[in-house]
Amino acid sequence: MANIPQQFASDNYAGICPEAWAALQAANDGSSVAYGNDDWTIRAADGLRALFESDAQVFFAFNGTAANSLALASLCQSYHSVICSSSAHVETDECGAPEFFSNGSKLLVAPTPDGKLTPQAIRDLAISRSDIHFPKPRVVTVTQPTETGLVYTPDELKAISATCRELGLKLHMDGARFAHACATLDCAPADITWRAGVDVLCFGGTKNGMAVGEAVLFFDTALSEDFGYRCKQAGQLASKMRFLAAPWVGMLESGAWLKNAQHGNACAKRLAAQIEPLTGVGLMFPVEANAVFLRAPEAVLQGLRDRGWLFYTFIGGGARFMFAWDAKVERIDELAADIRSLV
Amino acid sequence: MANIPQQFASDNYAGICPEAWAALQAANDGSSVAYGNDDWTIRAADGLRALFESDAQVFFAFNGTAANSLALASLCQSYHSVICSSSAHVETDECGAPEFFSNGSKLLVAPTPDGKLTPQAIRDLAISRSDIHFPKPRVVTVTQPTETGLVYTPDELKAISATCRELGLKLHMDGARFAHACATLDCAPADITWRAGVDVLCFGGTKNGMAVGEAVLFFDTALSEDFGYRCKQAGQLASKMRFLAAPWVGMLESGAWLKNAQHGNACAKRLAAQIEPLTGVGLMFPVEANAVFLRAPEAVLQGLRDRGWLFYTFIGGGARFMFAWDAKVERIDELAADIRSLV
Amino acid sequence: MANIPQQFASDNYAGICPEAWAALQAANDGSSVAYGNDDWTIRAADGLRALFESDAQVFFAFNGTAANSLALASLCQSYHSVICSSSAHVETDECGAPEFFSNGSKLLVAPTPDGKLTPQAIRDLAISRSDIHFPKPRVVTVTQPTETGLVYTPDELKAISATCRELGLKLHMDGARFAHACATLDCAPADITWRAGVDVLCFGGTKNGMAVGEAVLFFDTALSEDFGYRCKQAGQLASKMRFLAAPWVGMLESGAWLKNAQHGNACAKRLAAQIEPLTGVGLMFPVEANAVFLRAPEAVLQGLRDRGWLFYTFIGGGARFMFAWDAKVERIDELAADIRSLV
Amino acid sequence: MANIPQQFASDNYAGICPEAWAALQAANDGSSVAYGNDDWTIRAADGLRALFESDAQVFFAFNGTAANSLALASLCQSYHSVICSSSAHVETDECGAPEFFSNGSKLLVAPTPDGKLTPQAIRDLAISRSDIHFPKPRVVTVTQPTETGLVYTPDELKAISATCRELGLKLHMDGARFAHACATLDCAPADITWRAGVDVLCFGGTKNGMAVGEAVLFFDTALSEDFGYRCKQAGQLASKMRFLAAPWVGMLESGAWLKNAQHGNACAKRLAAQIEPLTGVGLMFPVEANAVFLRAPEAVLQGLRDRGWLFYTFIGGGARFMFAWDAKVERIDELAADIRSLV
Repeated sequence: MANIPQQFASDNYAGICPEAWAALQAANDGSSVAYGNDDWTIRAADGLRALFESDAQVFFAFNGTAANSLALASLCQSYHSVICSSSAHVETDECGAPEFFSNGSKLLVAPTPDGKLTPQAIRDLAISRSDIHFPKPRVVTVTQPTETGLVYTPDELKAISATCRELGLKLHMDGARFAHACATLDCAPADITWRAGVDVLCFGGTKNGMAVGEAVLFFDTALSEDFGYRCKQAGQLASKMRFLAAPWVGMLESGAWLKNAQHGNACAKRLAAQIEPLTGVGLMFPVEANAVFLRAPEAVLQGLRDRGWLFYTFIGGGARFMFAWDAKVERIDELAADIRSLV
Repeated sequence: MANIPQQFASDNYAGICPEAWAALQAANDGSSVAYGNDDWTIRAADGLRALFESDAQVFFAFNGTAANSLALASLCQSYHSVICSSSAHVETDECGAPEFFSNGSKLLVAPTPDGKLTPQAIRDLAISRSDIHFPKPRVVTVTQPTETGLVYTPDELKAISATCRELGLKLHMDGARFAHACATLDCAPADITWRAGVDVLCFGGTKNGMAVGEAVLFFDTALSEDFGYRCKQAGQLASKMRFLAAPWVGMLESGAWLKNAQHGNACAKRLAAQIEPLTGVGLMFPVEANAVFLRAPEAVLQGLRDRGWLFYTFIGGGARFMFAWDAKVERIDELAADIRSLV
Repeated sequence: MANIPQQFASDNYAGICPEAWAALQAANDGSSVAYGNDDWTIRAADGLRALFESDAQVFFAFNGTAANSLALASLCQSYHSVICSSSAHVETDECGAPEFFSNGSKLLVAPTPDGKLTPQAIRDLAISRSDIHFPKPRVVTVTQPTETGLVYTPDELKAISATCRELGLKLHMDGARFAHACATLDCAPADITWRAGVDVLCFGGTKNGMAVGEAVLFFDTALSEDFGYRCKQAGQLASKMRFLAAPWVGMLESGAWLKNAQHGNACAKRLAAQIEPLTGVGLMFPVEANAVFLRAPEAVLQGLRDRGWLFYTFIGGGARFMFAWDAKVERIDELAADIRSLV
Repeated sequence: MANIPQQFASDNYAGICPEAWAALQAANDGSSVAYGNDDWTIRAADGLRALFESDAQVFFAFNGTAANSLALASLCQSYHSVICSSSAHVETDECGAPEFFSNGSKLLVAPTPDGKLTPQAIRDLAISRSDIHFPKPRVVTVTQPTETGLVYTPDELKAISATCRELGLKLHMDGARFAHACATLDCAPADITWRAGVDVLCFGGTKNGMAVGEAVLFFDTALSEDFGYRCKQAGQLASKMRFLAAPWVGMLESGAWLKNAQHGNACAKRLAAQIEPLTGVGLMFPVEANAVFLRAPEAVLQGLRDRGWLFYTFIGGGARFMFAWDAKVERIDELAADIRSLV
């Protein structure tokens, strides 16, 4: 069966990268105990702890919807609330999953033109109400990089976490493309997580080159109490866990987790560089990770569609292009050429 | 990394079978659209419809916990109840998942010495209470084969579904090892599902030779309304869905779904045949699928453990052995020899 | 124990009106069967059906939080969404109750400067997304009168319900002060409920002069299936139901339900009439029910507080005053005089 | 409207006792702040703290379903479990409310012939499973007096709480008829609650002579964190809270809480004394509180029904009679005479 010509509508249009595949293959040799008591799972968790220079508690979930929703549910009760950006994936694209997993926690949405939360926006929401008729703020969630492709610096995160601490809020990071932020900042994963005050990270494996599987890291291990039960009850404990864990081993031990992200970022820069000189179109946001948001007249967008390009459209007429580990340079240049010819 | 010598503690100790693996590999060639709008997913759903001679609505979930819990939740509201056997996996081994996904539906447990529900047991529970202070029975769930390794015949299922219809109950089938029942009965899948009155089937892929992935089939398609949203919200919509779907294509098109089950069943028979002549030990249940429940004194069980065998112990001193697609005859014979020598 | 001097911060600062009290007293004579199978409950439900000229299914809940949340939960599943005004009580003052009772239904908030939903606002939200990653719109809720004290006319409601029908949405009415809308419009209750296309009404008793108790009326009786179980499970079935029901009998049979509302409305008009001539202060919204929203500089508001007045402050510096069945004319004039002297 | 001749089917067939009524009337004089910030609520909470010689955190809920379910939900997460007796009201008569409020916590039911939990029964259930596939035991709930009308002594409770502490379990008491236990034991409320190791008590007001209203007392105040939000979100915060609180003031300050219970207990003894000499019928359980369980042939029970008596039938052919504050001696003797004449 033929798949489709490469597209940049989403980085989950990509398949499994060679390093993850090789580990999958190795893990498929023979029998293994189930439910995460196998060596692959231990090795993956240890690998993550080593990468983060931390004794974090590590769990694996099938996808980001579940990883983020379970993590948030573990940080708050149903009558608490979660502060997020108006473009946060948990608010815009999870079909109410955080509310479902938490049995009712409300998301408090900060208007954020560029998708980045700020200490001030957090404070404004957190202190806007303190009566019993409104769910008590308990958690802040930031997406790193943001859904708009921007990256929080370590200092920005430290300022956010300081505000959280002051206001009694926990800090959660949706890291669906966390590796891309590390690649951009050229920093240690610890620098933008626990060293910057993040309590819990959901580290995305799927968009990084795996088939399925996200890691949840509790840097404040007290917060992870009974989290394994939570995963099990919520349908997120894989019986053949080795197939979720092994690809992580492959990614971590080979360095592919970072290499893949560097490639995606470079591809975004490549497209951006070809868009910037053009008139009539432009970039909606600075390109800091693996996303390019093209601002263009509808005629241009329609022209791209007519030439077979797939993409999501965004706020006020933009098109999003995302670059995965397998993005081909020639195909990016084809896209750039098509944009150029349509302007 | 080495996995472990083959064990029969669970059929999810096995890896991915060659036919599923080949499809996984084929699916990994290039780009694909996400969230189940790809050709692999369509082909898998069509393949299941063909196998079941039905226009069923088909969905895929990551694991059995979720597949069964979501299916049950779609059939009842929080104040309804679900009738099941006392050995039903949903009651004994899902950490409250059905209650979680349904937001509170209670399981009404029928005492069933051999794990099989009967029309009478269903009726007794269904009519035991009709006041508003007790959750209203709405669904019956049967496991085929049962957790004890027994198989419902088409006639038994028809009798159950007739009782369900009479009492206004829907009929759900937990088919974690559904293929093994088909292999035992040598019947069409339709004969023990919709033709016998089953409304919804969860067809297990994991124990049949896949890495992850269960299929949910709604034979009464009206019951599937908005089920896709339910899956998404509950963290069960895979972004790279092709990797859940393609193995199904491989299993169905190659016939491995049935061949694997036949092998597992034959292995169970092989072990049982070597146990039956022995004195002091015996079979707890007739061997009708891929499970053998060994009744044995604790000394024998401990002896097996001492020789390195892994297994779950069961009601009153039994040991469960389960046989997957990859069970090796020599290893079964080793186990049989060890039992023999310990008696 | 002394209560406080009369205040207009909320209409639930008032006690039980004489007609409700008399019925409570009558109901307290002797024994009665429990859980709503008593004559008082039947008589109250019949009385509501007569008032609404409808064979509606009628249920009673303890308070408005529960009545509205249970009604909404009965109209949607966890992955559906509810369209409401940005000033809707269910959004702003229920601590996430609708999300809790529905296990995750999201509220989609239409920006409504004056608190009134419009067909256009509903349509915009309802068609903004149709993908599986966003909860499917299923219900519209309007508050009659609105939280801003405005009243929907029958024609406005008909236009809204026509839009709902077209888009496949159910229409729920939060009638915490429903009687006040009837008093304002001088119309039959049916004219602004089922005749205008409302499916379910929560008719507030507490703010109308009772101690506790709201009625939920399902005009589309098919929607009420098993709603009694829902109430029971959610802790809203009173054992001594007669004490919730009897006050309704007293209110309905005496006409107090309307008389009380007329009084509250007249009181609001009285205060408004004394504010309108003043300069420097004004009305934030037209006075159409029993609420007055005073726009005034902070110095004036502080002056009122200093003189012992209690009130809620609102968007951009306003003060809300609400008038219940027991509002005393002299006390209103005291308030007006204080405002006047502070301007 | 006529209520019915006195019946003993349930103690919630009784109305509001004079002391509660008088307080209700006093509370209805004038205005009061809402949502529990009024003086009546403070006075009721203080009165309960004085009665219990404790600085407990006190909350009020509308009914027992909600009080117990919210208390249990505050003690466990959805993947935890609650150990209870097989005759516990939370298991048999709450339509799945504990599962609903907790979003899925499972009740682990100990078979208890007489309705009383024992340290051994608790231990057996608590240690029966410790794997992640089964909800982790977290709370024990006892009903005092039991649903069978038996009373736990302080020593029995201390033994239970010692087991709880050892096993890491919290101890909750469903005190729907708590006053009756105090009356039977002639002990201080503290003796059978916090002094005996109870963490949370739901103290029933309805069956003690009020219209609605139960008190939740957290003796371990750390466990009550944000419980007010929980009540609000779950529809259990009364706007006119004074009408829930004032009857408590009336009951506590007058001593009616105990007097009513003593009367109910004495009535049960009176009926029991007339049953005991009879042959062919008998008592199912010792009479220790305000319940009598009559063991009698179906012909006798039907004879009672034919003479107009209402009652619930119980395990194996028994009839339950419950005596409230208003039970009339002559009416009890009528019942006894009817039983006698039917034997």
